[in-house]
Amino acid sequence: MDNLPDTQWAQVAQGPGDEFEYKKVPVPIPGPDEVLVNIKFSGVCHTDLHVLAGDWPLKTKWPLIGGHEGAGVVVERGELISDVKIGDHVGVKWLNGSCLSCSFCQASDEPLCPKAILSGYTVDGTFQQYCIAKAAHVAHIPPDVDLASVAPILCAGITVYKALKESNARPGQTVAIVGAGGGLGTLAIQYAKAMGLEVLAIDGGSEKGELCKKLGAKSYINFKTTKDIVADVKAETDERAGPNAVLLIAPFEKPFQQASEYIRPRGTIVAIGMPADAILRAPVFETVVKMITIKGSYVGNRRDTAEAIQFFARGLISAPLEVMGLSQLQEIFERLRAGKVAGRIVVDTSK
Amino acid sequence: MDNLPDTQWAQVAQGPGDEFEYKKVPVPIPGPDEVLVNIKFSGVCHTDLHVLAGDWPLKTKWPLIGGHEGAGVVVERGELISDVKIGDHVGVKWLNGSCLSCSFCQASDEPLCPKAILSGYTVDGTFQQYCIAKAAHVAHIPPDVDLASVAPILCAGITVYKALKESNARPGQTVAIVGAGGGLGTLAIQYAKAMGLEVLAIDGGSEKGELCKKLGAKSYINFKTTKDIVADVKAETDERAGPNAVLLIAPFEKPFQQASEYIRPRGTIVAIGMPADAILRAPVFETVVKMITIKGSYVGNRRDTAEAIQFFARGLISAPLEVMGLSQLQEIFERLRAGKVAGRIVVDTSK
Amino acid sequence: MDNLPDTQWAQVAQGPGDEFEYKKVPVPIPGPDEVLVNIKFSGVCHTDLHVLAGDWPLKTKWPLIGGHEGAGVVVERGELISDVKIGDHVGVKWLNGSCLSCSFCQASDEPLCPKAILSGYTVDGTFQQYCIAKAAHVAHIPPDVDLASVAPILCAGITVYKALKESNARPGQTVAIVGAGGGLGTLAIQYAKAMGLEVLAIDGGSEKGELCKKLGAKSYINFKTTKDIVADVKAETDERAGPNAVLLIAPFEKPFQQASEYIRPRGTIVAIGMPADAILRAPVFETVVKMITIKGSYVGNRRDTAEAIQFFARGLISAPLEVMGLSQLQEIFERLRAGKVAGRIVVDTSK
Amino acid sequence: MDNLPDTQWAQVAQGPGDEFEYKKVPVPIPGPDEVLVNIKFSGVCHTDLHVLAGDWPLKTKWPLIGGHEGAGVVVERGELISDVKIGDHVGVKWLNGSCLSCSFCQASDEPLCPKAILSGYTVDGTFQQYCIAKAAHVAHIPPDVDLASVAPILCAGITVYKALKESNARPGQTVAIVGAGGGLGTLAIQYAKAMGLEVLAIDGGSEKGELCKKLGAKSYINFKTTKDIVADVKAETDERAGPNAVLLIAPFEKPFQQASEYIRPRGTIVAIGMPADAILRAPVFETVVKMITIKGSYVGNRRDTAEAIQFFARGLISAPLEVMGLSQLQEIFERLRAGKVAGRIVVDTSK
Repeated sequence: MDNLPDTQWAQVAQGPGDEFEYKKVPVPIPGPDEVLVNIKFSGVCHTDLHVLAGDWPLKTKWPLIGGHEGAGVVVERGELISDVKIGDHVGVKWLNGSCLSCSFCQASDEPLCPKAILSGYTVDGTFQQYCIAKAAHVAHIPPDVDLASVAPILCAGITVYKALKESNARPGQTVAIVGAGGGLGTLAIQYAKAMGLEVLAIDGGSEKGELCKKLGAKSYINFKTTKDIVADVKAETDERAGPNAVLLIAPFEKPFQQASEYIRPRGTIVAIGMPADAILRAPVFETVVKMITIKGSYVGNRRDTAEAIQFFARGLISAPLEVMGLSQLQEIFERLRAGKVAGRIVVDTSK
Repeated sequence: MDNLPDTQWAQVAQGPGDEFEYKKVPVPIPGPDEVLVNIKFSGVCHTDLHVLAGDWPLKTKWPLIGGHEGAGVVVERGELISDVKIGDHVGVKWLNGSCLSCSFCQASDEPLCPKAILSGYTVDGTFQQYCIAKAAHVAHIPPDVDLASVAPILCAGITVYKALKESNARPGQTVAIVGAGGGLGTLAIQYAKAMGLEVLAIDGGSEKGELCKKLGAKSYINFKTTKDIVADVKAETDERAGPNAVLLIAPFEKPFQQASEYIRPRGTIVAIGMPADAILRAPVFETVVKMITIKGSYVGNRRDTAEAIQFFARGLISAPLEVMGLSQLQEIFERLRAGKVAGRIVVDTSK
Repeated sequence: MDNLPDTQWAQVAQGPGDEFEYKKVPVPIPGPDEVLVNIKFSGVCHTDLHVLAGDWPLKTKWPLIGGHEGAGVVVERGELISDVKIGDHVGVKWLNGSCLSCSFCQASDEPLCPKAILSGYTVDGTFQQYCIAKAAHVAHIPPDVDLASVAPILCAGITVYKALKESNARPGQTVAIVGAGGGLGTLAIQYAKAMGLEVLAIDGGSEKGELCKKLGAKSYINFKTTKDIVADVKAETDERAGPNAVLLIAPFEKPFQQASEYIRPRGTIVAIGMPADAILRAPVFETVVKMITIKGSYVGNRRDTAEAIQFFARGLISAPLEVMGLSQLQEIFERLRAGKVAGRIVVDTSK
Repeated sequence: MDNLPDTQWAQVAQGPGDEFEYKKVPVPIPGPDEVLVNIKFSGVCHTDLHVLAGDWPLKTKWPLIGGHEGAGVVVERGELISDVKIGDHVGVKWLNGSCLSCSFCQASDEPLCPKAILSGYTVDGTFQQYCIAKAAHVAHIPPDVDLASVAPILCAGITVYKALKESNARPGQTVAIVGAGGGLGTLAIQYAKAMGLEVLAIDGGSEKGELCKKLGAKSYINFKTTKDIVADVKAETDERAGPNAVLLIAPFEKPFQQASEYIRPRGTIVAIGMPADAILRAPVFETVVKMITIKGSYVGNRRDTAEAIQFFARGLISAPLEVMGLSQLQEIFERLRAGKVAGRIVVDTSK
């Protein structure tokens, strides 16, 4: 590809505790099984803060270009690649690549691959204009889908969609979403509804309640005002037996304990999100007598990704979006740390 | 039925904290949907101690005839019954009956029926010569099966078989059984093997190790001598990735924590047994990143019961057995409390 | 119950080949496990014609009161019943009762119970004002649901909902419905949509196409005008690989053969409806190489029934309805035989 | 790798209707994602006859080196390969490679990949001393497993193991195997037993009956002497309700029709093998009322392959074997065509 520049703008951090610096770096060259993607937009995620903080027990590449929700256009490809074409719209996600050979990859559990490479964590990510990705792992985006809007689907959307699949809740059943009013929660409500589920939203405050109901939740429990959350949740469900599934977006101890009390016997509690050092805790007696299932759900595999994008492409999912420039990343992080972000921020790599 | 006596021998307790007393009581009369079973043998289970101790948060009938592993012969039946015949060999189990109408019963989850009645707990049980049971719930025992030997299958056998089914482990996969050398554990090894699973037995002491291997375990980890149980368990498994499933027979905190560390990603930990006040505890990060499933398994439903008995009837399961008289129950309890019972004790109701 | 009349109006047939006669008969008395239902409305189904024709290889009760889609109010109950109350709104369906004890009932497959009793076939059905039903099998109808409108759900609705469950199609996937414009088909479109499925409707004529799209079908294939149905169906699906599932409402040979050609590899073809003497036919080579699944789906079990009614009660399903009098049954049958019924006819038993 | 020869012995056919010719050909060079395998032994399969006959509707490479059950040692690898090492023992199977990117590969259904390449069919196969294979698709063989013995597992073993998985039969249930005494059948009996299934073997003649029982079948039906195969099969099963699953090794019309009559309601009939032009045929009424599932099963995916080899490596599977030279292939084919092969023939590529 003749027209590619030699250098590009990127956000680079030198090590744990450091901040990202906006500067010029060389455009990388893809290997035989890789593609080079001209990232147009990249979502900014709480995980990017964990990366800088270095508080997860996984080894990070340094210096590092962060970001793992990138949507763009393929501009170059390795010699082995025939399924991805120059000009294709693709997404680069947290799972940049995996070995495709181990027993986990063989069973479509690529996120569990011991050799998985992670965008913006173990390899350079999407906070740059030209990003390398393993061709077999890029997400395919239909050409008529807006690249800025789809960016948050590539991490947040996939994560909640996967968790809903893992919950084993069937169409017509009820899923409680704890943390329904936040970034992941509002996506979860919409995916759940598109999957034929009834949503019981749980969060704090009446504004969030209105948002949840507008997005399709059948009922809303305000944990700040309820006197007995267990009773109130059950009261909203069939036979007052509790919801069939619970999505715990921030699986801290207290909401987890409550979920094990209000969930329907034979129900499934799915924990997503990974607050450092948090602990799941449930009484053995209740868990056994009610035959409860507790599950951790990480990110989706390639099939989940394709499905999550398909729901989005059908117009069933929308996420409130704010577009800023890649050069403004530092400012975005400050707002994230201060909790002053409603919805998702996406960076435009050309600015 | 003309030949039935008016009175019979039974073991009756008056209230929590009390002991059972061996005495004569009237022979009960079955309702239209019930049968009267001449109990020949009844297993004695740790649960019977919980009943007397009153340490479970469920309401108990008082005065109470205990016991919930009874094998005997149908001697009378209610007017609505056609599927159970006089002379049939049947088992009376923990789940004496359920409503057969609620949403749990409709989904074959009779153990979760809110109106379930429990032998030797909410209704009189099998520590008597003539016991009432709901006809739709009695376990059918082939006529050529020894009634003393099958008694422990009716609770212990069903419980471990159900837990193995709940583990989702498929033939050829590996299940770790924690507490493999005890009463439930030795049955679990045999059921697992009959189901095509590879067994990794975990318990304390070398004697138990020999027993486990004799019963079919492929490998044995002695937790008393191992220096790193997580590493040792993993070393015995395919790709050193850990067992596909773990059965925790006594789900205390430490073995539970260890299981969450050595289990294979995507694996399932099944907790059975209900130590009062015990707590499940697992790190959120590991649970999510490894996509672990944690499940409580209670007792089996009627189909599980039939299947567990079928495995036994095929000669694939044997349980070391000691037969004593129903009148000796007090002595048996003392031995149970002192931990001086190897295998299962079964009482002969005629003695 | 003092106010019950001794006699009532019913439609009674004397034997195969006969027609139903509108006449007075005694009000029956429920047994200990039964309820007496004052049928308000009863749907009329093609199956009622099969019953009279006697062309199915199952034994029929004679003389017979037909009908198996009855909605009404409980007016009396047997001594064993506590879960159904006088005044409850309930449905009496094809599966009037089953033994609740056999291995099929134990596995929630009541429709396969060898002792199943069938309304309007092996026992008197819902073409009468007071009908007997096994209490454990009546469908529970919320009090605010219109009894005339819900009647067709009790057979047609359950049948298509069950078939959709059996198809294993997951939310977001595509199901083709062959015969989408008819009575069962229009219900199937709505259930599929409520379950998060994409519907590809197939039928003959442009009027039916408009109806299908109005009810929520994403695309419509007119088999009367298409030149290559296999290619046209595939063109409407993801990757042109065919729909994930096919519902064959009238499983005749030609549509079945076509379905095996256009279905996506690993897809499931579900046959519902039972045209006498029809044959399923598929090429072995295609079936094996594409790993196709072919399934027969009969009626739903009790849980499917409750779920199908719940979707209806949420306002997600509507069926075009025509109400006539029970006395006009003969006229209705003539219209059915002449194919002159659009939507479902329901009889009012008071007229 | 310096020691590799430039030429090697191979069996090459020029086109449909031709025979294989034993001659010297160049040793091929692996691409970046491929390995070169020194084939030590290769099984000979009926499929090789179909290839020569050209009677399947799939496009074949010509000239062609046949064979697709090769076991050998890796002698060279492409630059991208790190998971397969020089010296590893591996198997080259029917599915030589697939794209690993399409929606089928993403869902672990590599055999359905539209770009799948097939050994000895669309690419050169294992009837040569040095064979190319996609590294991500080679089967890993433990170093202590005999390469001659494992060869037939790589096609026949995987195929029957996959079919048993597809049957959904659970441990303790009964599977009928039609054609149990042949090459695939005898492997199927052993896999079924290792998976905890009860085997009801069906074939012709008393010699085959003895063989089946020796390999672990619980019962045997001789279709040549039975007067009513449907009744006889049912008589051997629980409640006389028929087997839970049926494996049809040669899915011709008559055995298929019989299977749909004797199978247990809710049971699954799995068709394997692909007799050209054969047709599946079943009565709609029975299929619907009994809720039967009919499935085609092709070959296994990579995970099935690993599992099938693992069962073999544990010593649970043995196949009667005859070793001949690669140069004798013509003679072997003549014996295959004449039906004069008991068990499996494996060729030694060094002779």
